[in-house]
Amino acid sequence: MFDFTYYTPTRVIFGKEAVDRTAEAVKSAGGTRVLLHYGGQSAVKSGLIGRLEQQLAGAGLFVVTLGGVQPNPHLSKVREGIALAKENGVDFILAAGGGSVIDSSKAIAYGLGEPDLDVWELYAHTRKAKACIPVGAVLTIAAAGSEMSNSCVITNEETLEKRSYNDDISRPKFAIMDPTLTMTLPDYQTQSGCVDIMMHTMERYFTHGGNMEITDAIAEALLKTVIKNAQILHADPENYEARAEVMWASSLSHNGLTGCGNDGGDFASHKLEHEMGGMFDVTHGAGLAAIWPSWARYVCASDLDRFVRFAQNVMGVDRKAGMSDEDVALAGIEAMEAFYHSIDMPVNMKELGISPTDAQIEAMADGCVRAGGESIGSARKLYRDDMVRIYTAARGDV
Amino acid sequence: MFDFTYYTPTRVIFGKEAVDRTAEAVKSAGGTRVLLHYGGQSAVKSGLIGRLEQQLAGAGLFVVTLGGVQPNPHLSKVREGIALAKENGVDFILAAGGGSVIDSSKAIAYGLGEPDLDVWELYAHTRKAKACIPVGAVLTIAAAGSEMSNSCVITNEETLEKRSYNDDISRPKFAIMDPTLTMTLPDYQTQSGCVDIMMHTMERYFTHGGNMEITDAIAEALLKTVIKNAQILHADPENYEARAEVMWASSLSHNGLTGCGNDGGDFASHKLEHEMGGMFDVTHGAGLAAIWPSWARYVCASDLDRFVRFAQNVMGVDRKAGMSDEDVALAGIEAMEAFYHSIDMPVNMKELGISPTDAQIEAMADGCVRAGGESIGSARKLYRDDMVRIYTAARGDV
Repeated sequence: MFDFTYYTPTRVIFGKEAVDRTAEAVKSAGGTRVLLHYGGQSAVKSGLIGRLEQQLAGAGLFVVTLGGVQPNPHLSKVREGIALAKENGVDFILAAGGGSVIDSSKAIAYGLGEPDLDVWELYAHTRKAKACIPVGAVLTIAAAGSEMSNSCVITNEETLEKRSYNDDISRPKFAIMDPTLTMTLPDYQTQSGCVDIMMHTMERYFTHGGNMEITDAIAEALLKTVIKNAQILHADPENYEARAEVMWASSLSHNGLTGCGNDGGDFASHKLEHEMGGMFDVTHGAGLAAIWPSWARYVCASDLDRFVRFAQNVMGVDRKAGMSDEDVALAGIEAMEAFYHSIDMPVNMKELGISPTDAQIEAMADGCVRAGGESIGSARKLYRDDMVRIYTAARGDV
Repeated sequence: MFDFTYYTPTRVIFGKEAVDRTAEAVKSAGGTRVLLHYGGQSAVKSGLIGRLEQQLAGAGLFVVTLGGVQPNPHLSKVREGIALAKENGVDFILAAGGGSVIDSSKAIAYGLGEPDLDVWELYAHTRKAKACIPVGAVLTIAAAGSEMSNSCVITNEETLEKRSYNDDISRPKFAIMDPTLTMTLPDYQTQSGCVDIMMHTMERYFTHGGNMEITDAIAEALLKTVIKNAQILHADPENYEARAEVMWASSLSHNGLTGCGNDGGDFASHKLEHEMGGMFDVTHGAGLAAIWPSWARYVCASDLDRFVRFAQNVMGVDRKAGMSDEDVALAGIEAMEAFYHSIDMPVNMKELGISPTDAQIEAMADGCVRAGGESIGSARKLYRDDMVRIYTAARGDV
């Protein structure tokens, strides 16, 4: 077990009428001039943006809006938001959306915190943030966990680099979580979200670090809950209880709770997917589903006890007479693939709908090294050659 | 499932060298003039108090100390602390101890937040707190969970009333958690702590409220972890890993996590025990162990599904052919009694070492009504007559 810090100051307001408490939450966090940041037109058409504008203005707050955040949020939109917020003397960023909108909001908030900052420097890891104005979130997609996390991923669309920056000063002041807001999400988005949620826990679970029992037990409880409720939502997307379970799991999976006492986690699957997302603009969770089985098969011999535990405690694999540890571990990976298929998620890049060339795979491996250093991962350290092999296996064309 | 809010802003610094980061944490929280509050001489003899004084002074902080907090912390000590802190212009209370010391510190902090406040008014529930100066904790006993909670229990030793007051403004700014500080605790204190930790989760688990699956699953994971590690510590008190598991469980069991989505919890066992603690000054966790089995038998028919789930998922009861739900539920309660006995905890008041008279039982029931209102509990609503019956059954003399 390792030493750890745990810091989750975000005030969660969860339930059917939570949105009505947004203005009160902004004011409690000291906001007076608000940039209301969102993604596509669905947030406008659903009435959410109008409802929030009216509520904030009615509470005496100044509001300026900026929509158009893309999945894999773009640096150019962040720069546009920083300029708009500066022009309007904004002191609070309110994100209404999922992980992409919240991440874009955090990036804008860093830009407002330090007037002379070129915000990409944070993501290029050439400097650390000194300040950040407060951010709040009205969550509309359960997936990224950005509503309570310290992390933020931005894509530089000129260089096709998708990069993350983590800092506690960007943790949202509050998160408004009304599960009914997620009921009209297309199934593909819902299920990609469920994969992302599970991966945030699995990245922390598969380590070599002599994990903490209570953390493992919580992680396993969370994974089993998401598996069960993802399948419920696949058949019954307007099931409130299942939406709520998945939404709360999204926050708990990435606020730090499922990593307490371990060695910081593996996160190789995320890093491998980031390069896929930068190059092909795939949906993040689906991209993770497409890479994880190939990663798992490649590394499982190096972290066999963990994979056996995972197979038995999470995937319900029953060790039959004559099965070796390797057999049990593999059965667990196959059970996860079967689960992905049961919710129409891919298990390789072919099923994801992308076919990187050998040269593109080399370029993605180069990108991983540039972003993550000489090696990535904890369950097994992966060097550039390993990354190429995993990408190639994940292509799914053999 | 119910709507909920979740707010746990306490920064947790966990591990073997955590104490060295205390002064830095006080400064980050804005403290400049510190009241260092502690309990008995063991904290002095162990060197902890001297080490903290030196560290704080070395960091340029003013320090005044006040020891002598009793288990079931007394109102008179709180008043002494408020006076001392006012005299010295204190702006931060640093608790070095367990739940009693942290609770006493929170009460002092309320007193400093509002100069004209008679602090007992909060505990008598005749008014709410408007302010509270910041509190930090260096935890030396894993039990009460006060290091991350919003709750605070004080005993008025003149009226023999033990009363709680809950308010988010008193949640500690940070908690320093070094499991090695708990290694020399007597076994009775360690095990009482484990019972208290489990009860904070069980109080939230036994409800009629249509609980949230992810919360139940986390609760069950936490309970099983504590059961396992309490038994490890009973045999091997210096087991660092087990001390760490139990310490982190103490915080997670009472910071709100194990109650998300339920109806606020039952808490009848706590309220029944508070009257025992006020009258007899028993160790809180041992008192809970002495009352819970009688409470459980009395209410289980009213919340049978929960008790069956608890028996199977937490206590590992195997439903054999012919067993009714009632049989399974009862087997779960018996398994908990067997666990209490395995760690030398009592299962009734006789084993706890107290023998209340009929008149004293009537007086405790009156106290429950005064503190909790006409009825207490959620698994089954308990009125004054019910309380008398549970206390009488818990006497253990038949």
